[in-house]
Amino acid sequence: MVRMSTRRYAIIGSGALGGLYGGMLAKSGFEVHFLLRSDFDHVQTNGLLVESVWGDFHLQHVNCHRSVESLPACDVTIVAIKTTHNQLLPSLLPSPTRNGGTVLVLQNGLNVEADSAAVVGIERVLGGCCFLCSNKIGPGHIRHLDFGRIVFGEYQEGQTGISDRAQAICDDLVAAGIDAQASDDLKMVRWRKLMWNIPFNGLSVVLNATTKEIVEHPESEALADAIIREVYAAAHACGANVPSEMIEKTMQTTRKMVPYDSSMRLDYLNQRPMEVEAIFGNPLRAACQRNAAMPKVEMLYQQLRFIDTMNQPK
Amino acid sequence: MVRMSTRRYAIIGSGALGGLYGGMLAKSGFEVHFLLRSDFDHVQTNGLLVESVWGDFHLQHVNCHRSVESLPACDVTIVAIKTTHNQLLPSLLPSPTRNGGTVLVLQNGLNVEADSAAVVGIERVLGGCCFLCSNKIGPGHIRHLDFGRIVFGEYQEGQTGISDRAQAICDDLVAAGIDAQASDDLKMVRWRKLMWNIPFNGLSVVLNATTKEIVEHPESEALADAIIREVYAAAHACGANVPSEMIEKTMQTTRKMVPYDSSMRLDYLNQRPMEVEAIFGNPLRAACQRNAAMPKVEMLYQQLRFIDTMNQPK
Repeated sequence: MVRMSTRRYAIIGSGALGGLYGGMLAKSGFEVHFLLRSDFDHVQTNGLLVESVWGDFHLQHVNCHRSVESLPACDVTIVAIKTTHNQLLPSLLPSPTRNGGTVLVLQNGLNVEADSAAVVGIERVLGGCCFLCSNKIGPGHIRHLDFGRIVFGEYQEGQTGISDRAQAICDDLVAAGIDAQASDDLKMVRWRKLMWNIPFNGLSVVLNATTKEIVEHPESEALADAIIREVYAAAHACGANVPSEMIEKTMQTTRKMVPYDSSMRLDYLNQRPMEVEAIFGNPLRAACQRNAAMPKVEMLYQQLRFIDTMNQPK
Repeated sequence: MVRMSTRRYAIIGSGALGGLYGGMLAKSGFEVHFLLRSDFDHVQTNGLLVESVWGDFHLQHVNCHRSVESLPACDVTIVAIKTTHNQLLPSLLPSPTRNGGTVLVLQNGLNVEADSAAVVGIERVLGGCCFLCSNKIGPGHIRHLDFGRIVFGEYQEGQTGISDRAQAICDDLVAAGIDAQASDDLKMVRWRKLMWNIPFNGLSVVLNATTKEIVEHPESEALADAIIREVYAAAHACGANVPSEMIEKTMQTTRKMVPYDSSMRLDYLNQRPMEVEAIFGNPLRAACQRNAAMPKVEMLYQQLRFIDTMNQPK
């Protein structure tokens, strides 16, 4: 298969998210380079296996890289590592972006693009949110359960309309069969996602429960609803014009979801550091600067900080 | 040993609390009758073993009762069952109180005397708080780790000074070596105790942690402090004049405590129903009537209701 696009992609972090989207791009004929750590040997030998609601596939031959030194200069470098590893970005990003390529940050949370921007310059950074239920269930083995939309746009504020490069990348993603959408309002997109991530990542850890259990019990459902409303109010205080319908829609979507362990709960259950600062700390600090209190979110943040500390392997 | 007092005591609920105080009274020569369920056979045969910071003791011969029918009419009936079993009070209280005796309710929470008052009449009810670290560690085997003070008084409001009967019972308890104190302000005593019970019972379950872990981690310590301040403000809104020093003192006391599993955490770990309504629901409803919001306490209540439901054996 030959693509019109000549854009070359690097995937930094080939897990539930990077493995799925990078795999979709590669399957569709794009040149995709995967940075792999623990899974390198397995994927080099066995390729990448994706079970997806969009259709299962197996890629036997994948461009695998054990370190960034062997990566070619890429047009688009997708950052798909957990934000808890962002201290690695100064060593990861310079190689694939050396010819001036763009960085697309697909990480959870708010202002998570800042760490990439500090390395390559804010003008080269796009950010995006993935509305995705996907887990890595083994080495080089991704299981994509539900949803999958990427919405992304320029990180730097003050631009009008969708940028040409965002549209060009969006065209590639759509050509690869991905439900992608370019946006001229990343801030709104990020806060809209937080309206799900904050209640459901947080409560799934503190209550040790699936999303289904949370929405099916009246007390936890009422609490999730109250938290969603706090985040909605803070979003508006921060200038993110999330439509009011999203309050009820966030709840409805979750009720209809397959029972799902949020990424934060999986981190918790596997004793990995949780993305507490990206998803809770940064929004709380942004809201605080605008005098928007989020008392329940703050309590959830304090509970998660405690649980995160206690959960680290001794 | 012969006591001046002729008061006869019934202990309804011979666990960590009833076993300790009833045991102290019996050891000191008072006539004490214990209602026992699962521990009846063991205590009938082996007596009651108390390991206490006040001194260990073993009572070989204890007045054991398998059901209330065999209880004599008592002057003082101490209610020391968990509030989650208060639905049993209409069948438990009539027998020992049949000659007009007094009921002393030593249960956690707020307005927990109402269930006893509904059986015997509000004018016959005293209530009290125990500042006590004590656990039942086996059948008829109590381990009293720290503290131990009982503060109690009339449940019916509008009285002036300490009632004669409260003082008389207090004299018995003190004579038995118990750190007891009669009060003319039960409402204040109850709210003061809630300033500990609400943060530390609640957080010890939601965070699955000991009191020591909670006060030693800065985030959970800050959260506990914020919750204490909410309860303090609600107490004042409800007319309970808890001294402001209690805010800091509650924290300091907990820092100096031996590492302790709160009664609610023990219930949680043993998959028993937790006293969520007595300790959280009743104070929230009382505060709500006075327009005093406790948003963090409300969130803790919702989390505990969820956890309590999920924690019941299937």
